[in-house]
Amino acid sequence: MAGSDLQAGIVGLGKMGGNLALQAVERGIDVVGTARHKKPDLEEQGVAFSENYRDFAAYLKPPRVIYLSVPAGHPVDDVLSQMVTHLDVGDVVMDGGNSFYRDSMARERDLAKKGIHFLDCGTSGGIAGARHGACFMVGGPEEGYRIARPVLEKLAVPEGLVYTGKPGSGHFVKLVHNGIEFGMLQAIGEGVSLLRGCGDFDLDLAGIFHNWAHGSVIRSWLVELMEQGLSERSLEAIESYVEDTGEVNWLVETAIMWEIPIPATMIAIMELFESREKDSDTHRSIALMRHGFGGHPFGKDEHIAEERRVSRITKI
Amino acid sequence: MAGSDLQAGIVGLGKMGGNLALQAVERGIDVVGTARHKKPDLEEQGVAFSENYRDFAAYLKPPRVIYLSVPAGHPVDDVLSQMVTHLDVGDVVMDGGNSFYRDSMARERDLAKKGIHFLDCGTSGGIAGARHGACFMVGGPEEGYRIARPVLEKLAVPEGLVYTGKPGSGHFVKLVHNGIEFGMLQAIGEGVSLLRGCGDFDLDLAGIFHNWAHGSVIRSWLVELMEQGLSERSLEAIESYVEDTGEVNWLVETAIMWEIPIPATMIAIMELFESREKDSDTHRSIALMRHGFGGHPFGKDEHIAEERRVSRITKI
Repeated sequence: MAGSDLQAGIVGLGKMGGNLALQAVERGIDVVGTARHKKPDLEEQGVAFSENYRDFAAYLKPPRVIYLSVPAGHPVDDVLSQMVTHLDVGDVVMDGGNSFYRDSMARERDLAKKGIHFLDCGTSGGIAGARHGACFMVGGPEEGYRIARPVLEKLAVPEGLVYTGKPGSGHFVKLVHNGIEFGMLQAIGEGVSLLRGCGDFDLDLAGIFHNWAHGSVIRSWLVELMEQGLSERSLEAIESYVEDTGEVNWLVETAIMWEIPIPATMIAIMELFESREKDSDTHRSIALMRHGFGGHPFGKDEHIAEERRVSRITKI
Repeated sequence: MAGSDLQAGIVGLGKMGGNLALQAVERGIDVVGTARHKKPDLEEQGVAFSENYRDFAAYLKPPRVIYLSVPAGHPVDDVLSQMVTHLDVGDVVMDGGNSFYRDSMARERDLAKKGIHFLDCGTSGGIAGARHGACFMVGGPEEGYRIARPVLEKLAVPEGLVYTGKPGSGHFVKLVHNGIEFGMLQAIGEGVSLLRGCGDFDLDLAGIFHNWAHGSVIRSWLVELMEQGLSERSLEAIESYVEDTGEVNWLVETAIMWEIPIPATMIAIMELFESREKDSDTHRSIALMRHGFGGHPFGKDEHIAEERRVSRITKI
């Protein structure tokens, strides 16, 4: 696009990566994406597509700025190992997913040896944020941040970009953010259980959440999403099973390693496991808000559940 | 004030009542207040002051619209019993405090016999809300709500006024709101403990909360207050003891009565008690945010602690 010489590459064009690509096009960034399957809808809207890492890297002028939007764990290592031979010294690779921050520290060390700047780029704001303005918390080498910053500034809401320092710190800060998110979701979900469970009144929940979204102490995006969700579907019709890709579990590991008491966050995570065994309005409400920000599916996702099972086995 | 014939009386001119009175003056409402001590600063800014309930009632044209801003428990009954002889059939008395909703149900029944409309008017938004636009959730007789509504609409932020239905429902909804607030405070507080307790990084907390307030999934007023608080004072300098007037404890009673599981909210309340026994960053952070929205004091408040002790004894 005229007037801008910013370029970015995006690996993984799912809910987050695809919407970030569309936002980038809208902001005048020249975007190339790559993914397992072609994305004709994105191509129609101006996202270039490469079928392999060689073409993908060739599209971008060094120093390249590349954003990964793939699931945490082995998918990140798979992408890095396949892509790295096509990159040059001075290129920047950002991991925008929810990787464990200690994995990110190790990946940064490995890539630094090849002269490639690896940034751990915690990304928040859900699908709507990816599409219209996200929130980034970025750790890693300062030189890499300097190179990637113009692209990140375009894709972030005003004031929504922070450099957190050392490698791993961006993903650590995002992990803590996700723990707070779980605690907030659980607190709001329990509130719904109380509103519905107390037999003294017959309350209009959507009206109450609308009220709380305006001027209350608990006003927040999650309260707004709860209102919106309740206006779109009936709570009874939602499966109570809360699906999750499991990355927040690392927060428990971290809390135990550093011996930091996080009783409410821990309860929120445990309750998510509990949701898979029983029905409750709390968990239906959590599912409703998670669908609101992340497009997370209602009910059990066999694919995610199997991925989690496999990752547990390989860990032992 | 020309152009408006709205009048309101406010009983109790503390942090909440005093600021609501100032907001009312600003919005063109003719306001009279009464309180144990004179308030020359409020009088200077246009709030009429009466030293007794007779003068207070005489100032207001029937049907009167009166808002109580006094502590929950016996202070509400004291005000009602002393004021009621000066009121007329058709007057409206709203309890704007955090009274137990079952007490409000009983008070409504008693006052209805005298022809007085009693509304339970849950009020949120903290001191800033009282001063510049609050959030009200109102239960009670519809006729009383119809009379009070023009005043409440002036004092609420747009969309910040909801009629919740039967007597007691407004205070019940506010109680649930306060439970969610406690859960959110605890979740954010635990996040701070994690950010500070993990030894891998040296993080700028105010910068991180600034980032989270912009575009993240957890963006909320409490996250903004945390950022503001951290920019104004050092966390280490804050006493970990979290003071509280104890009304949220009724939520536990309610949850137990209706057998509704609220594990995270319960933990948040228990942790508040725990804060009085030990030091932690979680509780320092909670104290910081509570100071931000409610002007709550740092450290132990001997007066509040004594009030709580007395109210427990009289309950037995």
